[in-house]
Amino acid sequence: MAMKTGEQYIQSLKELKPPVYFMGEKIENLVDHPAIRPHINAAAETYDLAHDPQFAELVSARSHLTGERINRFTHIHQSAEDLVTKVKMLRALSQRTGSCYQRCVGFDAMNAVYATSYEIDQKHGTEYHGRFLEFLKHVQANDLMSCGAMTDTKGDRGLSPGQQPDPDQYLHIVERRKNGIVVRGAKTHQTGAVNSHEIIAMPTTALGPGEEDYAISFAVPADTPGLVYIFGRQTNDSRKIESAMDAGNPRYGAVGGEALVVFDNVFVPRERVFMCGEYEFAYPLVEKFAALHRQNYGGCKGGVADVIIGAAATLAEYQGVSRAAHVRDKLTEMVHLAETLYCCSIACSSEGSPTPSGSWGVDTTLANISKHNVTRFIYEIARLAQDLAGGFMATMPSERDLRHPEVGEYVQKYLQAAAGAPAEHRMRMGRLIESLTTGIALVESMHGAGSPQAQRVMILRQADLESKKKLALRLARIDA
Amino acid sequence: MAMKTGEQYIQSLKELKPPVYFMGEKIENLVDHPAIRPHINAAAETYDLAHDPQFAELVSARSHLTGERINRFTHIHQSAEDLVTKVKMLRALSQRTGSCYQRCVGFDAMNAVYATSYEIDQKHGTEYHGRFLEFLKHVQANDLMSCGAMTDTKGDRGLSPGQQPDPDQYLHIVERRKNGIVVRGAKTHQTGAVNSHEIIAMPTTALGPGEEDYAISFAVPADTPGLVYIFGRQTNDSRKIESAMDAGNPRYGAVGGEALVVFDNVFVPRERVFMCGEYEFAYPLVEKFAALHRQNYGGCKGGVADVIIGAAATLAEYQGVSRAAHVRDKLTEMVHLAETLYCCSIACSSEGSPTPSGSWGVDTTLANISKHNVTRFIYEIARLAQDLAGGFMATMPSERDLRHPEVGEYVQKYLQAAAGAPAEHRMRMGRLIESLTTGIALVESMHGAGSPQAQRVMILRQADLESKKKLALRLARIDA
Amino acid sequence: MAMKTGEQYIQSLKELKPPVYFMGEKIENLVDHPAIRPHINAAAETYDLAHDPQFAELVSARSHLTGERINRFTHIHQSAEDLVTKVKMLRALSQRTGSCYQRCVGFDAMNAVYATSYEIDQKHGTEYHGRFLEFLKHVQANDLMSCGAMTDTKGDRGLSPGQQPDPDQYLHIVERRKNGIVVRGAKTHQTGAVNSHEIIAMPTTALGPGEEDYAISFAVPADTPGLVYIFGRQTNDSRKIESAMDAGNPRYGAVGGEALVVFDNVFVPRERVFMCGEYEFAYPLVEKFAALHRQNYGGCKGGVADVIIGAAATLAEYQGVSRAAHVRDKLTEMVHLAETLYCCSIACSSEGSPTPSGSWGVDTTLANISKHNVTRFIYEIARLAQDLAGGFMATMPSERDLRHPEVGEYVQKYLQAAAGAPAEHRMRMGRLIESLTTGIALVESMHGAGSPQAQRVMILRQADLESKKKLALRLARIDA
Amino acid sequence: MAMKTGEQYIQSLKELKPPVYFMGEKIENLVDHPAIRPHINAAAETYDLAHDPQFAELVSARSHLTGERINRFTHIHQSAEDLVTKVKMLRALSQRTGSCYQRCVGFDAMNAVYATSYEIDQKHGTEYHGRFLEFLKHVQANDLMSCGAMTDTKGDRGLSPGQQPDPDQYLHIVERRKNGIVVRGAKTHQTGAVNSHEIIAMPTTALGPGEEDYAISFAVPADTPGLVYIFGRQTNDSRKIESAMDAGNPRYGAVGGEALVVFDNVFVPRERVFMCGEYEFAYPLVEKFAALHRQNYGGCKGGVADVIIGAAATLAEYQGVSRAAHVRDKLTEMVHLAETLYCCSIACSSEGSPTPSGSWGVDTTLANISKHNVTRFIYEIARLAQDLAGGFMATMPSERDLRHPEVGEYVQKYLQAAAGAPAEHRMRMGRLIESLTTGIALVESMHGAGSPQAQRVMILRQADLESKKKLALRLARIDA
Repeated sequence: MAMKTGEQYIQSLKELKPPVYFMGEKIENLVDHPAIRPHINAAAETYDLAHDPQFAELVSARSHLTGERINRFTHIHQSAEDLVTKVKMLRALSQRTGSCYQRCVGFDAMNAVYATSYEIDQKHGTEYHGRFLEFLKHVQANDLMSCGAMTDTKGDRGLSPGQQPDPDQYLHIVERRKNGIVVRGAKTHQTGAVNSHEIIAMPTTALGPGEEDYAISFAVPADTPGLVYIFGRQTNDSRKIESAMDAGNPRYGAVGGEALVVFDNVFVPRERVFMCGEYEFAYPLVEKFAALHRQNYGGCKGGVADVIIGAAATLAEYQGVSRAAHVRDKLTEMVHLAETLYCCSIACSSEGSPTPSGSWGVDTTLANISKHNVTRFIYEIARLAQDLAGGFMATMPSERDLRHPEVGEYVQKYLQAAAGAPAEHRMRMGRLIESLTTGIALVESMHGAGSPQAQRVMILRQADLESKKKLALRLARIDA
Repeated sequence: MAMKTGEQYIQSLKELKPPVYFMGEKIENLVDHPAIRPHINAAAETYDLAHDPQFAELVSARSHLTGERINRFTHIHQSAEDLVTKVKMLRALSQRTGSCYQRCVGFDAMNAVYATSYEIDQKHGTEYHGRFLEFLKHVQANDLMSCGAMTDTKGDRGLSPGQQPDPDQYLHIVERRKNGIVVRGAKTHQTGAVNSHEIIAMPTTALGPGEEDYAISFAVPADTPGLVYIFGRQTNDSRKIESAMDAGNPRYGAVGGEALVVFDNVFVPRERVFMCGEYEFAYPLVEKFAALHRQNYGGCKGGVADVIIGAAATLAEYQGVSRAAHVRDKLTEMVHLAETLYCCSIACSSEGSPTPSGSWGVDTTLANISKHNVTRFIYEIARLAQDLAGGFMATMPSERDLRHPEVGEYVQKYLQAAAGAPAEHRMRMGRLIESLTTGIALVESMHGAGSPQAQRVMILRQADLESKKKLALRLARIDA
Repeated sequence: MAMKTGEQYIQSLKELKPPVYFMGEKIENLVDHPAIRPHINAAAETYDLAHDPQFAELVSARSHLTGERINRFTHIHQSAEDLVTKVKMLRALSQRTGSCYQRCVGFDAMNAVYATSYEIDQKHGTEYHGRFLEFLKHVQANDLMSCGAMTDTKGDRGLSPGQQPDPDQYLHIVERRKNGIVVRGAKTHQTGAVNSHEIIAMPTTALGPGEEDYAISFAVPADTPGLVYIFGRQTNDSRKIESAMDAGNPRYGAVGGEALVVFDNVFVPRERVFMCGEYEFAYPLVEKFAALHRQNYGGCKGGVADVIIGAAATLAEYQGVSRAAHVRDKLTEMVHLAETLYCCSIACSSEGSPTPSGSWGVDTTLANISKHNVTRFIYEIARLAQDLAGGFMATMPSERDLRHPEVGEYVQKYLQAAAGAPAEHRMRMGRLIESLTTGIALVESMHGAGSPQAQRVMILRQADLESKKKLALRLARIDA
Repeated sequence: MAMKTGEQYIQSLKELKPPVYFMGEKIENLVDHPAIRPHINAAAETYDLAHDPQFAELVSARSHLTGERINRFTHIHQSAEDLVTKVKMLRALSQRTGSCYQRCVGFDAMNAVYATSYEIDQKHGTEYHGRFLEFLKHVQANDLMSCGAMTDTKGDRGLSPGQQPDPDQYLHIVERRKNGIVVRGAKTHQTGAVNSHEIIAMPTTALGPGEEDYAISFAVPADTPGLVYIFGRQTNDSRKIESAMDAGNPRYGAVGGEALVVFDNVFVPRERVFMCGEYEFAYPLVEKFAALHRQNYGGCKGGVADVIIGAAATLAEYQGVSRAAHVRDKLTEMVHLAETLYCCSIACSSEGSPTPSGSWGVDTTLANISKHNVTRFIYEIARLAQDLAGGFMATMPSERDLRHPEVGEYVQKYLQAAAGAPAEHRMRMGRLIESLTTGIALVESMHGAGSPQAQRVMILRQADLESKKKLALRLARIDA
């Protein structure tokens, strides 16, 4: 059966028992833990919508390997149209969840490893691509969710992997066996790691001679011995436990649910190794993954922005100011910024091109532009939403006070909305905006497998200043 | 004894028993409640620094009434220099607390009521100013902290106070007695309300004929019968309880600690009433208070920005990137924005002028400019700090995981900083930035007794476009 | 012969004798007038590049009417690919000219009238589309340049066309004859009007019942009796006459060369009338034209930005600062902004869709986004370029001083560049940047057949706030 | 007689015969040359307003040397109030001229040399300060206009003055004589140089051992043999000659009128030398001058902004859109930006402090902030004004066409304004905005004796990051 439902996905998670720690405790029942469940619910939407007639075209695809209908998150892009459809799928999913559904990291990892393993084989005569195809068939057949594990902890950022005092600051081989390798290190900021079936590891930076042990890519099941997960704190994470209403977006949570994934001497069998020492392919793999991941943001953040805009417009109505010129102007600005993000993601997709492996990749420059704009605009969208919502969002009483026998009536009376809507509606909408805007901005610096500065360096590198200079010299009539 | 210490202030709070509710419970011991105590600690600094030789010049003043040395927060400004000193005091206090010490609201309320009550008396032959002087002497002699209560809940924002379906949406007189008045309504976003000695009420907007019942100003002790406090939620407020380290700024908390203050048929004795029906003075009182309050932001947010800048610079060092050009550029930008805010607060102070009462007020236009810039720049400062801190801040494990017997060593190993500093230091600094930047932006929409849009309307009103048009007509040689 | 060369284009202009006035004089020899020739040179590139092997694929197309190879500027878009190719062609042309080549206005007019005339015929049984096809064949066969004339002078902007005290403020029919119509009015900001072969008129705004006389579209040869052209002043226009070097971009000039085109009782023969009274199609025609025209900006301004970036990078080299971090950062920012513009134009094209006539139109929302971003970013690109160039650009002596027998050696000595390049090179590059950046920003408010505010209104109208509100209500768990 | 009138100033210029070149010609009659006269008119306002009862308090002062009433532009600041008054004077003058009146450069130079010469004497026992006092008395007694000449041509910016292949790229001593020195080099961007009485030279950068010949400051009359002036081109400078109306601000011109001032072996008598080899005082002198000059911008550009705002508001009225929300919002934004600039200049003044010489200097950090904000905001103010004015400004016909016997009536008819104002008024106002906004932005990169980047470096240097770090360490509870 190629495509799971959300419920089947959740059931399948119960069979995995990865060791997950949070707030000083080991979580025994991941699926029902209130700090984790919202993120699982969001990921489950990627399964359910593949069966929904309204979204099936976006969220499913036909496997180029088997011809079967598969979930698009397990698909290898076969055309620019596939790339564009990905962006539209992400926007639709974000509109539904207002959150991160975490599944694009593995999706992008698979596409990046697919193309890179082919290129390594072409040069070195290795068998990585064939191995990866087997893994891919397994993923497609069982509709698995994968975590794309790239970002190492990096230690001293002024030193390359091979120069670190602690070699484990970058994931690396500590033992080579006949039937596989043993690896140690940790991957940080791993979105969706605790509710994925598979972990796909990749290098995080360019590597050189002598750093062969760091040039590794592989996939292991999420409960492989030696893997340990430490689930990070989020803004207002306690509210997921304290009160559904105060949480703002109780069903899907805010952002992605990130974990530190420790590889404490993890054994990887030979058939699951997709790169092993070919350091010159580390950077190409990083770049392919990064570009595919940066492509996403105009889709997924565009969809979140749609929810923020809708919430701000609703709250403006509740508060009786929806016709005011400045309110309309701010909503316009938010729409403008969201659609600009979307344009960048669409453009880097429609301008995509085939890789040697036959899969399609995005326009790398334009994908960088997409990500860099998100870094800026999402703050501005959040600022405008908070400005429109006004101060009540920052000082609102808790749900428990709303329902309190003594002071509940005060809360109901004094937080009631203008347009006849009850205080509870106004508070719910305020909490939703709070949830959407306080987390999103903070977490943005983590997303995208690279800092804004790294994107800037890439933007300049790809800009081809030399050809631009020639244009200017010609017009200024200077013989260059 | 004119000036309390911080400890004496805290002791004095224990004698008050205002009914305060938070998270569905009535707080019995306010002073020791972990959700409240950090805000009390911050306010206590306004007391302690008046005794500190390094700060005494800034934080104390000489009473123009008694000639005694008093805490500056109980002072009536006697000169432009007093206004400038206020700004410098606020910056120094914010640098010490990284938070809001809540005492300027009452400070500004006292200065605004001082000047306005004088003007009412001049016109109407009333005795408000004399009553206020008595109140002021009491405050100065006992070094009391006052809450300046202005913002009503407002109900339908398209209707004026007298037109509201629910008349209680604006605080108003429900009964006039010989010896005083009985009032009903609620004031929202009341910074420092639960740890103040006195509540000073003021109208929140311009009023007209028929709205005499809303044109009231008075002061009552914070535990006057009929007052009920509902303490609002803040970003990450649970962390004040969960973990000192995760709270980021454990001693002083984030932002101010706001409450909804309900006036449920509160009796105000005659001698504590400073305005009662003179509706034409409602707007002048609002404007005086607003201008004095907007003056503050370049001081207090400037000081918070200094801490943010220091924290970002420290974290950059820990992460080994403090010499990178883009890091230095972002720090420069943060400094630039912080000093711009400071300039606006200084300028509206040094350009201040005396009121008819003899007290000094700020330049209203420039004070509006100050506040309007804060609304923008504090977001940008927060964005830059989060960008510099990087993603680890968004996904960092909890303190409990750092200290956990099984996974603690992973956290220590993989979050350690480059420059030899332990993981704990890096995490503490990250949590401090998180605390300083996630709350400050949200709460900014509430501060300042008016939305950015209200400031814009005032800016245009004060801009004297007509005289500017004449300048242009003359230069363009058009006879106007 | 379907495709002219640039030289043939210029020759063909000599046969036309439109009455053109500039600086108080009637221009007798348009083609050789120094104020006009640079704009003709720029337009000539649209002819020459169609024959250039490197650009032929972009700048030519196959006519869907005749199957002949035609200049793309006379083509009707047959696919999303055609729309994308248009954007790439514009960028390439702007890179070559650093200026406006003026031919897209007529190009967009033809595509808009093509689709609209079809729709009118469908509803009213008229014959406009057939007439337009004849006109189009004529244009394609003779490779004509058309001016798309939309913007009326508008008189009192608070009144609709039919309410104007002076009815001529919007172009309208003053007489209907058997064989045609007589029209009066004026079109303003007409880019390329004085060097076009044909003028295609369109309404400029939505029209209603009673405004039938304003609902007109037609094409007339540029030297039709009654047409009068008054060529507008540009920034530094005198330099085109004074000194090639001081002009900055002597061959192609700056911006487009706009004229006020007066229609003083112009007779339009029946077969050249494409709309005549069907007021309900006025707005659709405006919208189609506007969308197609807004699509352009990421292409044409992207290309101009490429030249600006190249010039700024070259000048930084001359001045010995090209490795400085802040210089690289500013260049990166300029690239980032230029590529963002490009993304928007690509996205609105690749997301295009067919019209009922079979021609393809762009995504209107995303085209608006494209234009709105240009309005902002082009200023920022100009600001950064001027910042990088530094003050010498603002105070540089004239070319005549550089070549003066007495002071020329001072200029050569003291304006020489660091890297061994002579003063003349540095001055030429400075003049180029001056030319590219002082004109572009000013003229931007005119381009695009609509003010930024009009775009904002359209952005909000197209944003579908209702569906966004539903997303928020669902996540906040409020039954709407 | 201590204070000249404007007319007397102009007469006094006629007696000087500096060799000035412009557009390849030597100007014989400077005062009546149409390219120069507007700048002279602007400078004349600094003389006339000292006699105008409305402005006399601002524009005159009492000499601390003689007790005489003198023009403030020749005054040495004796208090923070003097510094604040300077800013207000500049704003008032800019409001009157809409342009640069050029006299603050010499004003700032005198204050900087006054303080520095005192400090050199204190250390080296030299007699510079006494000499300077004599010069100052001469300037005050004759109410002279001085040009402050700082910016050298700099050659290769990667090399210090002493390392230049061409030693003349920095002004330096070429011969020492008993009675004086002979200097060679050139100062660039010299505002007001061609209509000043005296040239005050200063070094442009920090100097070290071996660079004694560059460590010079002195004053010479503007027609001293060896001085040659090459007057630079400005945006639309030809319009000063072509048409008063097209010039926009015909009486006062745009920006300052800058020249390259060549010192071709100029002899400076001993008594006019104020620094001669004391290289360690080069940077302090630069910094003092720069801070005083950066102080100005919120005053002078604030005043220009007032005119721009007035012109934009007037034009909005002419065009019938002055009540539109977006128009009011943009005017508000322009006011906001202008007042922010003003705040920074006021704050750096009111926070000024005395120098060892007894004169007062500004707060250097805040003065840098002031300048840095101008660099940004003046672009934004210009952008908003151009946006409000709309496209007609970019394509408007010339005045000659307005008055042309054949086409004049077309221009009058089709450019007429909505509100009954004739086309000429609308065109005049458009030309004024064009003049105010196209030049101001470009020239801004030159003003201020330093690039934005130099300001950024100074901002960070002065920011005292170490003390800010300590604040953060304390709050994060880390023992530093």
